[in-house]
Amino acid sequence: MRLYTYAGSPNGYKVELLLALLGRAYERVEVPIFDGASRTPEFLQKNPAGRIPVLELDDSTFLPESNAILWHLARGSAYMPRSLADQDRALAWLMFEQSEIEPVIGSARFWILTGRDRTRRDETERRVAWGKQSLAVLAGVLSARKFLVGDQPSVADLAVYAYTHVAPEIALALPEPVAAWCARIAGLPGYVGRVFEYDAKARSET
Amino acid sequence: MRLYTYAGSPNGYKVELLLALLGRAYERVEVPIFDGASRTPEFLQKNPAGRIPVLELDDSTFLPESNAILWHLARGSAYMPRSLADQDRALAWLMFEQSEIEPVIGSARFWILTGRDRTRRDETERRVAWGKQSLAVLAGVLSARKFLVGDQPSVADLAVYAYTHVAPEIALALPEPVAAWCARIAGLPGYVGRVFEYDAKARSET
Repeated sequence: MRLYTYAGSPNGYKVELLLALLGRAYERVEVPIFDGASRTPEFLQKNPAGRIPVLELDDSTFLPESNAILWHLARGSAYMPRSLADQDRALAWLMFEQSEIEPVIGSARFWILTGRDRTRRDETERRVAWGKQSLAVLAGVLSARKFLVGDQPSVADLAVYAYTHVAPEIALALPEPVAAWCARIAGLPGYVGRVFEYDAKARSET
Repeated sequence: MRLYTYAGSPNGYKVELLLALLGRAYERVEVPIFDGASRTPEFLQKNPAGRIPVLELDDSTFLPESNAILWHLARGSAYMPRSLADQDRALAWLMFEQSEIEPVIGSARFWILTGRDRTRRDETERRVAWGKQSLAVLAGVLSARKFLVGDQPSVADLAVYAYTHVAPEIALALPEPVAAWCARIAGLPGYVGRVFEYDAKARSET
């Protein structure tokens, strides 16, 4: 199993976090995306969308999209809810994450940390305000329960955690129930944190 | 089974298209989202994120997120790929749709058709250019095969179709392989099209 990823990406981190929690071995290939490495003809064979992470399976096929990779890896593990109804709810959280967290907190964070907010100030402000709303949604849900689906941590928590726990980097404070939930995830056996590093190229583009 | 949806939303249409293809009966509840109807305390009980569509199941639980609803409805039908590997690939397309189609072609279309592009011209232009890229990704894939996963139409095609087939409304031309694929979907037995209607309230906000 080989993971193509980029150290600056919480989408990539999601997958590495689940792999660590599951104790699964894998080969890690760093893809310097701001050098265009995810847009080469060779990489586009792996993922026509030109994005990381991509998981290369043992049969040499490639699976793109962080949340689809999480779903694949979680199947049959303690991180996949048992009932189909809970699996549906987990999948809804994965979709929520791709609509209301990643392009919201994630994009705002990327723009601010790399200086791109200077050329899109209004849109950055909109995303930060929207991110606050998304955190409020999570706070409401997590004030009533420990994890997003059922009583146990699942693939849903890991997907949502990746971009949520870095919100304070752009001065988006975590509401108390969300901070407590982040602490529960960080306390899971096998948990790994990551320092997200944008390379110089990431900062040089606008 | 009861579907809470809004006539202007291709996210809602996705679900109604699959229900039609499957010949499933359901009660349809129109939610005038621009009147704030998806933000009432009562609706937030159904979906804390305050968005449509939401499916109310026969056990009176609620499932939000269009693509999670599609997954739920497709399970056990001809629209769910048989092998787990193909299910993973289908799920990756659902995630692609939520990252590279819906917030791209969908947002640009919404802003342009409701006049919101006037207050976010740069971001609208970025999304239109990005939408062109997303259509090119689809064109590359669909030039080599008839449907996104395997030889049969699946939940992946329906998810991606919803916002893709309306791209020409904002002068984003469909590349030939994408247009041919749209025609294949429109030719499926049971297919229903929809005229998307934004109400006056949708146009009055900025």
